[in-house]
Amino acid sequence: MLQNDLLLKALRGEEVSRPPVWMMRQAGRYLPDYIKLRNKYDFFTRVQTPELACEITLQPVDQVGVDAAILFSDILVIPQAMGMTVLMEEGKGPLLPDVIKNGADVTKLNTDDIAHHLSYVMDALTLTKKELNNRVPLIGFAGAPWTLLCYMIEGKGSKTWDKAKQFCFTQPELAKQLLQKITDATIQYLLAQVKAGADMIQVFDSWSGTLSPADFQQFAQPYLLQISDAVSTAAPVILFPKGSWYALPELGKSSAAGIGIDWTLTPKMAREMAGPNTTLQGNFDPCKLLAPIPQIKKEVKEMIDGFGTRRYIANLGHGIMPNIPVDHAKAFVDAVKEYGI
Amino acid sequence: MLQNDLLLKALRGEEVSRPPVWMMRQAGRYLPDYIKLRNKYDFFTRVQTPELACEITLQPVDQVGVDAAILFSDILVIPQAMGMTVLMEEGKGPLLPDVIKNGADVTKLNTDDIAHHLSYVMDALTLTKKELNNRVPLIGFAGAPWTLLCYMIEGKGSKTWDKAKQFCFTQPELAKQLLQKITDATIQYLLAQVKAGADMIQVFDSWSGTLSPADFQQFAQPYLLQISDAVSTAAPVILFPKGSWYALPELGKSSAAGIGIDWTLTPKMAREMAGPNTTLQGNFDPCKLLAPIPQIKKEVKEMIDGFGTRRYIANLGHGIMPNIPVDHAKAFVDAVKEYGI
Repeated sequence: MLQNDLLLKALRGEEVSRPPVWMMRQAGRYLPDYIKLRNKYDFFTRVQTPELACEITLQPVDQVGVDAAILFSDILVIPQAMGMTVLMEEGKGPLLPDVIKNGADVTKLNTDDIAHHLSYVMDALTLTKKELNNRVPLIGFAGAPWTLLCYMIEGKGSKTWDKAKQFCFTQPELAKQLLQKITDATIQYLLAQVKAGADMIQVFDSWSGTLSPADFQQFAQPYLLQISDAVSTAAPVILFPKGSWYALPELGKSSAAGIGIDWTLTPKMAREMAGPNTTLQGNFDPCKLLAPIPQIKKEVKEMIDGFGTRRYIANLGHGIMPNIPVDHAKAFVDAVKEYGI
Repeated sequence: MLQNDLLLKALRGEEVSRPPVWMMRQAGRYLPDYIKLRNKYDFFTRVQTPELACEITLQPVDQVGVDAAILFSDILVIPQAMGMTVLMEEGKGPLLPDVIKNGADVTKLNTDDIAHHLSYVMDALTLTKKELNNRVPLIGFAGAPWTLLCYMIEGKGSKTWDKAKQFCFTQPELAKQLLQKITDATIQYLLAQVKAGADMIQVFDSWSGTLSPADFQQFAQPYLLQISDAVSTAAPVILFPKGSWYALPELGKSSAAGIGIDWTLTPKMAREMAGPNTTLQGNFDPCKLLAPIPQIKKEVKEMIDGFGTRRYIANLGHGIMPNIPVDHAKAFVDAVKEYGI
């Protein structure tokens, strides 16, 4: 059905002529047409209005030529659906004014009817799937439980996530209750996304790299694996525990079809650690998109040489930044498409 | 001469009864007596007045019982000695109002008479060495060239250091000129520190972990090795390229006596990567000092079990944070001292 199914082939480990390519945060702040919509509608209006989310999701497919669309949304819609207030100040990041402080706060979090609470996401996926008209696959996503716990405990971004860690280290059983509730809500949410049209799911554990390997095994990995096991029955799952390179051997043996990696390890290290049965996704330093275009093209080629074309999805190692020129983003995508030609 | 030379023994690979212990940023913000001085004198007055720097340096030796003193100072004194203005707003971090923008800015940076420009550091070291009266070794330090370049290009802290990277990626030859000038100044500075009384030197590459392994090899490693080679002739050197676990095999073969590591790798991983001839230093997650004291003591014991007592210096994986209770910091130090008893 799909005209371009490179992404799904790569996730199944099938032979491809060249690797598929998309960019984390590809629908967003570096695109002039996105900025026009940002100046007209506030953040959650853009997220909650299916027509706007769809339009933003399609922009990089039409304008940059990526091999997959990823729904424009936010990882903090899950804390919202669980009953927490989430505010977003443009350019300042999220703010959760009423953070989780104790057992009563955890108990009162909702885990019922998550898909119903987030029906606008499903509507956006269904509309986008229709508008894509089978050109490329559509990616759904969620934040990982550890990363969502960070925001639900701290209420905003942090350099160290020391309050989130203090919560886990001083009340590990309560922390695990909270992580389990987030996991339960997330599984419902992701299965509904697949039903609504998502061809693949990515789980973003943006802050897992702040954990030691032992703490990752306690507070992150079990919940990533639960999500992967439950959702993989419906669609392929990529886990992206940013910074947690040490988890590659374990995650490589999991139900996840793919693992995202950042640029702090070489393709060779990643392959050795993850084993042969996992598709790797990454790992271009987003800052390198500020290099001259010939340099970008040269390093993209070296990256693909390192990973090989099979079981590999070309991507950045983290989200694209607002200050990346569109022609540099396009050079990155083009370099992947030109590989081997 | 030294009554407690555990640190120097560990760096030479000699047998010790238990590992030495100190904490990065041990002279500082979590100590009530430091806060009293902070409320009386501004940051650079504390740094530039030998009597104050000495008093602050001795506080954790007297009050927390660490096995080494590290001079209270700042890595940004080198950009100052090279002619740049550095401001420090309490609780807000550094600000360099006139950043490096081009070749002319690099050319005019001073590299002459660095030790003379920073004579207050040497005076502070000599005074502290005298006041320590050979109780424990005295550690001198500097920032690594890559980390100093970050501040000299960006002018303040950054999540991504994208401007510093852009400078390196678009003008690599100019970036290397700048890195070399910082290296030359730093070598003079560190040799003068040893002459003034420092028994050991640590080089902090706080932001090296934002670089890919290939970029680390271009923009960080050569300068770390130059410094290590030049300064190791005078005193043992510990390199701490935070987050750059991938560099352990190369640095393990270098002239550096030790390598600092953060908590994102296990003792076993670190030993395997660094090889048998390097002393490892670290790697307790500073946030874990917020755990209950019995938990801290249990995990410190596990950490030492993992590293072994030989060629190992117990430390945190990054600086201690302002919100750590003093009795928790003391529990960390005590747990190391109680090891094997």
